Amino acid sequence: MKFTKMHGIGNDYVYVNCFKEEVKDPENLSIKLSNRHTGIGSDGLILIKPSTKADFFMDMYNADGSRGKMCGNGIRCVGKYVYDHKMTDKTSLSIETLSGIKYLELNVGEDGKVILVKVNMGEPILKTKDIPVVFDKERVINEPFTVDGINYNLTAVSMGNPHAIVYIDDVDGLEIEKTGPKFEFDSRFPERVNTEFVKVLDRKNIQMRVWERGSGETMACGTGACAVATASILNGYVDNDVTIHLLGGDLTISWEGEGNDLYMKGNAVTVFEGDYPV
Amino acid sequence: MKFTKMHGIGNDYVYVNCFKEEVKDPENLSIKLSNRHTGIGSDGLILIKPSTKADFFMDMYNADGSRGKMCGNGIRCVGKYVYDHKMTDKTSLSIETLSGIKYLELNVGEDGKVILVKVNMGEPILKTKDIPVVFDKERVINEPFTVDGINYNLTAVSMGNPHAIVYIDDVDGLEIEKTGPKFEFDSRFPERVNTEFVKVLDRKNIQMRVWERGSGETMACGTGACAVATASILNGYVDNDVTIHLLGGDLTISWEGEGNDLYMKGNAVTVFEGDYPV
Repeated sequence: MKFTKMHGIGNDYVYVNCFKEEVKDPENLSIKLSNRHTGIGSDGLILIKPSTKADFFMDMYNADGSRGKMCGNGIRCVGKYVYDHKMTDKTSLSIETLSGIKYLELNVGEDGKVILVKVNMGEPILKTKDIPVVFDKERVINEPFTVDGINYNLTAVSMGNPHAIVYIDDVDGLEIEKTGPKFEFDSRFPERVNTEFVKVLDRKNIQMRVWERGSGETMACGTGACAVATASILNGYVDNDVTIHLLGGDLTISWEGEGNDLYMKGNAVTVFEGDYPV
Repeated sequence: MKFTKMHGIGNDYVYVNCFKEEVKDPENLSIKLSNRHTGIGSDGLILIKPSTKADFFMDMYNADGSRGKMCGNGIRCVGKYVYDHKMTDKTSLSIETLSGIKYLELNVGEDGKVILVKVNMGEPILKTKDIPVVFDKERVINEPFTVDGINYNLTAVSMGNPHAIVYIDDVDGLEIEKTGPKFEFDSRFPERVNTEFVKVLDRKNIQMRVWERGSGETMACGTGACAVATASILNGYVDNDVTIHLLGGDLTISWEGEGNDLYMKGNAVTVFEGDYPV
């Protein structure tokens, strides 16, 4: 099976062109090939398939074999893949995912290959019951919130998955392995929660680290960066265009405020091409 | 650059045939391609080169760019690589390494590909000053040894690198992240130490976990398995042929006792072939 290993700010998947390859039992295949010692090594498997509703269909599987709905870093690589492999010559693309159709704008470099991709991530969700977070107000924007005896000011946002954003002084020094699980398993987050620990550097730059539910600390979380930008714009800390600095790299977020869709822009990188025996 | 990803019981390297490829600056290349998110992902880079002293030369680099001398799991894959790629038709091979020439016996399956490889690992070193371990006897064989307030019986062996072997009742339940560093940084091991936590299952089977100096817990340590077999044979716990069960898989060790070389046998697996842009 021919494959391409790609990553968006360090969030790496194995990409397979299902216009040419037939993949049977993708759940088990994803488990096997995601193993970083005995497999190809990845965060999961993304199958690029035909769509009846959009230009392409992104069918994704996590490293544990579960089916994924959508990944902001993954979908940028899908855009690069189909353009670089000349499966389309359009730079505005629609991609069907299990959480709806997403729209991409491709930035093409001088060598004719895609460098950056902008993704319409939809409108952030702020209602507590839709996030969900158990709280006695309609929204949680900069509200006092005590976790494990420490007082934070919390902002809660859903980008299709729940995020808790807190601002701290020392992001590098944070013992995230201790603090992250306290948020994740707090009973006020009935579906658990992804937590972003954030420092605003100036009106155009934010540093963050993320604790993802079920995964622990990761190098990059696209929806987390979107949630952090949303929270920081709502709190008045930053302008409407802001660069988020994650461990794996940078993402640029643009959001004109409530009633508007949010756009995320970041890199998409081809690491190598391979052939995996199946 | 064409490469092959291979592993021996989960210890995985990127293998490059330097009869065909020229590799410049292997130190930096190893760092870059070993990255498990933005590179190929591996424990390091192994270059297969011509030798004037042996059939082939194994030139290895760790994931941090440092040059490696020898790796028991890696050298088995070198044997499989050169045979499967028809670079030799011999099943007894000599491989030059930075810690001398090593001798391999290849087991070939019905499909004409190598399945198992037996490596002559040389004679275990038992003298305290050569291991090195600071102790007031010439050897440390089953000697009382207190680390962090806990009493163990220690056996110390070098297979070219220092190993401390202790027998415990509950290998699975061991908090190795806490205990491993206490051994590694004990001042009686002036070059630090790899520590094997071991349970003898019966006279032919041993379970072990390993804490490698500089790396922490790993799935597989070839020299560690050899040291465990040596210690367990010297202590009279097992027969001269013994299977060591590591997290990554099994290795079979044969040793006829002092004055003899020790043999390690285990698998060698090709994961996939790829092409990496350099």
